[in-house]
Amino acid sequence: MHETVVETLQRTLVQDLSQHVGETVLLKGWVYARRDLGGVQFLTLRDRTGIVQCVGSHLEIPMAESVVQVKGKVVQHPKAPGGYEIQIAELQVISRAVEPSPVELPKVQWNVNPETLLDYRYVSVRGLKERAALKVQSVLVQSFREALIDAGFTEIFTPKIVSAGAEGGSNLFEVDYFGERAYLAQSPQLYKQIMVGVYERVFETAPVYRAEEHATSRHLNEYLSLDVELGFIESDEDVMQIEEMVLQRICKELADKCQKEFDLFKVQAPVAPERFPRIPLLEARQLIKDHFGYSVGGKDLDPEGERLLSQYFQEKEGSDFVFVTRFPKNARPFYAYYEADGMTRSFDLLYRGIEITSGGQRIHEYPMLLESLADRNMKVDGFEGYLEVFKHGMPPHGGFAIGAERLTAKFLGIQNVRYARAFPRDRHRLLP
Amino acid sequence: MHETVVETLQRTLVQDLSQHVGETVLLKGWVYARRDLGGVQFLTLRDRTGIVQCVGSHLEIPMAESVVQVKGKVVQHPKAPGGYEIQIAELQVISRAVEPSPVELPKVQWNVNPETLLDYRYVSVRGLKERAALKVQSVLVQSFREALIDAGFTEIFTPKIVSAGAEGGSNLFEVDYFGERAYLAQSPQLYKQIMVGVYERVFETAPVYRAEEHATSRHLNEYLSLDVELGFIESDEDVMQIEEMVLQRICKELADKCQKEFDLFKVQAPVAPERFPRIPLLEARQLIKDHFGYSVGGKDLDPEGERLLSQYFQEKEGSDFVFVTRFPKNARPFYAYYEADGMTRSFDLLYRGIEITSGGQRIHEYPMLLESLADRNMKVDGFEGYLEVFKHGMPPHGGFAIGAERLTAKFLGIQNVRYARAFPRDRHRLLP
Repeated sequence: MHETVVETLQRTLVQDLSQHVGETVLLKGWVYARRDLGGVQFLTLRDRTGIVQCVGSHLEIPMAESVVQVKGKVVQHPKAPGGYEIQIAELQVISRAVEPSPVELPKVQWNVNPETLLDYRYVSVRGLKERAALKVQSVLVQSFREALIDAGFTEIFTPKIVSAGAEGGSNLFEVDYFGERAYLAQSPQLYKQIMVGVYERVFETAPVYRAEEHATSRHLNEYLSLDVELGFIESDEDVMQIEEMVLQRICKELADKCQKEFDLFKVQAPVAPERFPRIPLLEARQLIKDHFGYSVGGKDLDPEGERLLSQYFQEKEGSDFVFVTRFPKNARPFYAYYEADGMTRSFDLLYRGIEITSGGQRIHEYPMLLESLADRNMKVDGFEGYLEVFKHGMPPHGGFAIGAERLTAKFLGIQNVRYARAFPRDRHRLLP
Repeated sequence: MHETVVETLQRTLVQDLSQHVGETVLLKGWVYARRDLGGVQFLTLRDRTGIVQCVGSHLEIPMAESVVQVKGKVVQHPKAPGGYEIQIAELQVISRAVEPSPVELPKVQWNVNPETLLDYRYVSVRGLKERAALKVQSVLVQSFREALIDAGFTEIFTPKIVSAGAEGGSNLFEVDYFGERAYLAQSPQLYKQIMVGVYERVFETAPVYRAEEHATSRHLNEYLSLDVELGFIESDEDVMQIEEMVLQRICKELADKCQKEFDLFKVQAPVAPERFPRIPLLEARQLIKDHFGYSVGGKDLDPEGERLLSQYFQEKEGSDFVFVTRFPKNARPFYAYYEADGMTRSFDLLYRGIEITSGGQRIHEYPMLLESLADRNMKVDGFEGYLEVFKHGMPPHGGFAIGAERLTAKFLGIQNVRYARAFPRDRHRLLP
C-alpha cells in the first residue's frame, strides 16, 4: 500500500517544505553535494527554488549534478540550510552525470579568476549566487517593462542588423549580409526615435553590440539595453521623471520578489527615493573640488569624480541615485538637443559611484539637425537615413538607456559585470 | 481670461474624448489629413490612441505629418470617425514637416507592392493598420511572458553572437568578431537547454537570424523568436499543455486589449480552445487522403496538407489550432527525443493552415545523444560545446518556439509577414 500511495505523490518544491512538516513528500532536483559519514549519508538536493539537506543510510548517491528524486519525510531541523531536513525513504536516479563537474558548485569562490568559472559556465551558472544574479536581472527587466506599459508605452522590436552605426561608425561588428557589408546595432537610437512618430512612448529590451577592444570589469561586447523614448516633452526634466518612476518600480518589485537573492549576496535591496537629486555638470565639478579637493580631469566626470559625487549625495541626501545634467555639446552625440549657451538638455544617472544611464532630449527639427552636423564638420552623407524621418514631423522627444547587466551588478555588489550575464561575450570569449 | 484658462489645460488623448463632450480640450498629435472646403477647413488629428476630425475656419493647416496642438470644443458627431468632432478654437504648429510625406497615409492600400511601403517605412509605419499590427504584437509578446512567469518560468537572455550553429551550420550569417569568425544565432536552442539545468523552466523573447536566400511571404531573415524550455517532463504532452496554456492567455489578453486593432483589420480576435486537437503525422496524412483525396508529398506535411488538415479540424471540432505529433526521426533535428519505433516525441502546431510552432522533447542523456549523432553520420567534432552540458545531469526536458511575426500576421489576416515587423530584413532589404 505504501508504495502505491507514494507513487501518486505530486512533486513538492523546496520552497514549500514548511507546509509539509511531518508528511512524506516527493522532491526532484540535482545532487548539489553529498557526504558519507559511514553509516549515515547526506545529500543536498537543489531545485529551482532552493536547496535542502536529505539524510539516509545504505544509499548509493550518484555523482554531483546528477538528477534525482527523493521521497522522504519532512522534519524541522534548525541547523540545516532552510530549516528543514528530509529523512530519505527512497532515492531514485533520474539522469546520471557521467563526468565529475569541472567546478564544485558549493565551493565556488567569487574571488577566483573569473575565466575559470566562465569557461565552465554551462555548469557553473547553476551555482546559487550565479543563478540568483540572473534571477534578479529577469525581475528587473520585467519590472522595467511593466512600469512603462502602465504609463502608456508600447514595446518595440527593432533590427539588430543595420547598414550603418547610429553613433558615428567606430566600434561596430561587421556582418556579411548576403555579400553586403552590414553591422550589428550599437543602440536602437534611430529606430526608437522613428517609433516615437508612431506610438509617442516606446521601449525596447534587446541586445546591443560594441566592438570595444578593452576588457574592463564594467564593459561587455554584447549586453542587454533597456531603452526608452518619449515624445511631447517640455525638456529633459520629463525624461528624468520617467526614469525615476521606472527605477522606483524596479526597486519596489525587487524588494518584493528577490529578498532571498539579496540575502544570499548579503546586500540590502536597492531603494529609490521619491526624487533623485539633480546637479549640473559644472556645479558637480566645482562641488567635488570644494568638498573633496579633487580636480576632475577632462570635460565630463571621470570615474573618481563619479565616485565622490555619489558619496556626497549619499551622505547629504541619503540617495544612491543622482542625476548629473547640462553637459556641454562636445561631451554628447550630435543628436543631443542644445541651448544657446552650448549646453545640452542631457543627463547621466549615477548609482553608487557609477554611470548607469545616459539620456536627454533629442533634436527634433530638421534644420537644427543639419546645423548640429555642420557644427561638428560631420558630413550629411552617412546620415541621410537618420535625417529622413525628421523631415516628416517629429514632436519634441527624448529618452534614455540602461545597461541591464551593469545595473544588476551594482544592485548586488558584483565586481565584474560578466557575472551579470548568462554567457558573456568579451574580447577573448565566444564560448560557451 | 479665456487664454489663461486654456494655457493651463492638460493634454487630452483622443481615446478619452467621450469624457469631455461640451468641454474645451487640448489635443496634440500629427496632421493625418487635411481638407479645405472654401470657408471651412478640416484637419484629422492622429495621436497614439486614435484619430479625430477637427473643423475650423481661416486656419493655415500645415503639411500632413506636421505635429500640432489643437484647442477646441468636443461635440458629438455620429458621422465622424470615432463619433466626435473638435471645433477648433486655436491651432498651433509644434513641429513642421518640411517635405510632403512619400506615402499618403490615409490612402495606403495594402495590396500595392510592399516594397514601396517598406522603402518609406520610417513614415509608413505611422499608418493606422501598420501601427495596429505592431501594437497587437507587443501585447502578444507581453502576454506570452506573463503567462510563463505566472507558471514559474524565468526569463533568460542568451548570446546572439555564437561560435557555431545549433542546427548544423547552414544558413548562418557570419560576423567578424575581433578577426575571428563567429555567427548570428539561428535559435537559442542550446542555451535554453543549458538554462533548464539552472531554472528548470525558462523562456526568451529575442531576435534570431536565418540567412535563407529565398524571399517568401512567410519568412524573414531576422525575426523575434518566443522560446520556451522546461524540465522534469514525462513526454512532449507536457510541453504541448504549456503551449496551450500560453496561447490561451495570449488570445484572452488580445481580446481584452486589442479589440480596436482587430476591428480595423475586420477580423475576429483569435480564440484558443481549452484543448487543441492532436493527431499523429501518419494519421494526418491518411486523413487528408481519405477526406480530401489529396496525397501529401515528402516525409512531413506540405503547405497544401497543412491547409487541408487545419480546415478539417476547423470544420469538425471548431478549432483553429491543431497539433501534429510523432514525426519520424529523419524529419527532425538530431536532438529530438525518439522512441524504439523511430518516431520522435515532437510536434508542430498549425494555426489556420500554417505551422506556427515546432517543439518536442529533447534527448537529455549523453549516451543517447552520441547515438543520435552516429545514426546520422554526424561527427562529434562540431558539437562538443553542445554535448558538454549533457555530461552533467540534465532532467527530461522539452520546449517549443513561436515566430512572433508569423503568429501576429496570421491573427490579423496579414498576407505578408514583413508587415508584422517594424523594420524587416530580407534578402534585399537592409534599410531603413
